[in-house]
Amino acid sequence: MGGIDDNTWPMPGDMAGKVITCKAAVAWGPGLPLEIEEVRVDPPQKMEVRIKILFTSICHTDLSAWQGENEDQRVYPRIFGHEASGIVESVGEGVRDMKKGDHVVPIFNGECGDCVYCKCEKTNLCEIFRVNPFKSVMVNDGRSRFSTKLGEPIYHFLNTSTFSEYTVLDSACVVKIEPQVSLKKMTLLSCGVSTGVGAVWNSANVKAGSTVAIFGLGAVGLAVAEGARARAASKIIGVDINSEKFTKDLSLDIGKAMGMTDFFNPRDVDKPVHEGWGLTVTLGIHPTPRMLPFHPMELFHGRRIIGSVFGDVKGKTQLPHFAKECMRGVLNLDEFITHELPFSKINEAFQLLLKGKSLRCLLHL
Amino acid sequence: MGGIDDNTWPMPGDMAGKVITCKAAVAWGPGLPLEIEEVRVDPPQKMEVRIKILFTSICHTDLSAWQGENEDQRVYPRIFGHEASGIVESVGEGVRDMKKGDHVVPIFNGECGDCVYCKCEKTNLCEIFRVNPFKSVMVNDGRSRFSTKLGEPIYHFLNTSTFSEYTVLDSACVVKIEPQVSLKKMTLLSCGVSTGVGAVWNSANVKAGSTVAIFGLGAVGLAVAEGARARAASKIIGVDINSEKFTKDLSLDIGKAMGMTDFFNPRDVDKPVHEGWGLTVTLGIHPTPRMLPFHPMELFHGRRIIGSVFGDVKGKTQLPHFAKECMRGVLNLDEFITHELPFSKINEAFQLLLKGKSLRCLLHL
Repeated sequence: MGGIDDNTWPMPGDMAGKVITCKAAVAWGPGLPLEIEEVRVDPPQKMEVRIKILFTSICHTDLSAWQGENEDQRVYPRIFGHEASGIVESVGEGVRDMKKGDHVVPIFNGECGDCVYCKCEKTNLCEIFRVNPFKSVMVNDGRSRFSTKLGEPIYHFLNTSTFSEYTVLDSACVVKIEPQVSLKKMTLLSCGVSTGVGAVWNSANVKAGSTVAIFGLGAVGLAVAEGARARAASKIIGVDINSEKFTKDLSLDIGKAMGMTDFFNPRDVDKPVHEGWGLTVTLGIHPTPRMLPFHPMELFHGRRIIGSVFGDVKGKTQLPHFAKECMRGVLNLDEFITHELPFSKINEAFQLLLKGKSLRCLLHL
Repeated sequence: MGGIDDNTWPMPGDMAGKVITCKAAVAWGPGLPLEIEEVRVDPPQKMEVRIKILFTSICHTDLSAWQGENEDQRVYPRIFGHEASGIVESVGEGVRDMKKGDHVVPIFNGECGDCVYCKCEKTNLCEIFRVNPFKSVMVNDGRSRFSTKLGEPIYHFLNTSTFSEYTVLDSACVVKIEPQVSLKKMTLLSCGVSTGVGAVWNSANVKAGSTVAIFGLGAVGLAVAEGARARAASKIIGVDINSEKFTKDLSLDIGKAMGMTDFFNPRDVDKPVHEGWGLTVTLGIHPTPRMLPFHPMELFHGRRIIGSVFGDVKGKTQLPHFAKECMRGVLNLDEFITHELPFSKINEAFQLLLKGKSLRCLLHL
């Protein structure tokens, strides 16, 4: 492989239409260390794209699926990973918006552009390719494009499966990015940063001068801060039950860089801090079966609760705009990549995230 | 009193600055029949208005407060009532936007126009005069403007206390209406109809072609239907656990007049009817302490829950517009007034609502 992040990538040899054998990190059971091994990657079928992954990082949704927190998600062997960037190796029949060599970002929450939901401004949940943690095969034929050397299927994850040198996705789940943009940074737009920034720009539509409180200061929470800073929020309050996040942890300084103005730990206060109205946006996947006790009058004084998947971002439509905002310096993503490791050290990267040591550890393939 | 609803009302004799003795329906304890008796009504103080009530109706919030469902609300003797219309009898010092003889509608959720909330487009909850079921005195001096003939205070309710021939309100809680508009109909804008129509026009901002489901087919639910019909919703689904609402009850035919296209009783179906995303708007006051068990993933697929007070209507700013839409025929309120009675029969009107026989019973004062 050529130089990292100089934006000129060597084209893979012409393997179009052929099976590629490459390395992938395969999960064989809940919580078991991933095995880096050779897998076979089938060519893309109709409206599918095969991409060469250059960078991938790890998100908490990978962690909880790997740990098998939800029994219905326990499908093995499987290739996890959904936050990545890469280049198109080949495209299947009918793909018109991408070609070999294009720089791309995979999206776990696809956008076909044709269904009633894609045509509706009120949702970013495509009828066919919306995020689905239970899906493990391709839509076209209900089968996997990955297999072991013995021909046994290896299953997909979240429409993406990026812990592999090559992966096959539906073209609805691949966004073309201008070649001038750093693919390293674009990796972050693939999930966490878009989720946080989108929650501010799309879901809450935060205006200049607003007050924003962020519950949970991981990568997504900090992306919310960065989105709020870019929108000129006047007060950005970080809240976390882990006080280390405010003292020795990495999040504090990064939070300040992202415009955070206040921090507090709810365990250190014994009465409500403020009563008022506002909008609560819930982000991410909550595998716990625990219910929230919720009284309808909680909403009475003008309170709102909304769920936001992938920051209400319609990926193929909006991510190129987000990429431009990064190039213009409106969004600063430098602070999010706290670690970089070779792909072979993926289990080490899992532990960094599990222990709260990293925001994003970028794996180089 | 002159002819009903001919929009020319005799002016009361000049009582400005003096105590008026008039009839009111006084509540002496939870669930006890209201007593029609003579009360003394003080003149309006600074920024207050004394109005002569011409019509009042009863809303479920009056019912539950009268029944004393919430212990903290049990303040007696008290004058309930918040849905009404009338004419200004006199104004206190500093009131510039109204004068004697003006046609007005009281609003329980006031709009001072000056506070940070009134100046914010995101809420209709005035810092000082927002709806407060626990408030029973005037803001100016923390006292009541009503008293018995013996001089004992009779308490206020919801900024309004309209079950009285005369009442005193903060001017922030009184909306001037063009004299051409029928005051009878305007009574409905005072609470229920504005809450329902506002939920559609403001809170949900329903667009042409949308699907709207309405849970609970009382006056507010039917006002939601009318607001949705006016916005050209393509499907308006009525839902109620009381099947009588679909068969012999008054709501069905009225619902059809308001464009309802479908009806069902959730007790008659044994599996979910439809899974999808959408916005849920909760309306009204829920005195029950019962919690909703609520899992955050309920919101995951693009679902939203918001609370809406008074249909997110800023009363002084928006009600004159609603009144014009009624005059233009965009909103049709004729069906809501199912009964009319003299004020002296207010206890009968309470029973009609309690038994689900009436939508709105208009009391003539």
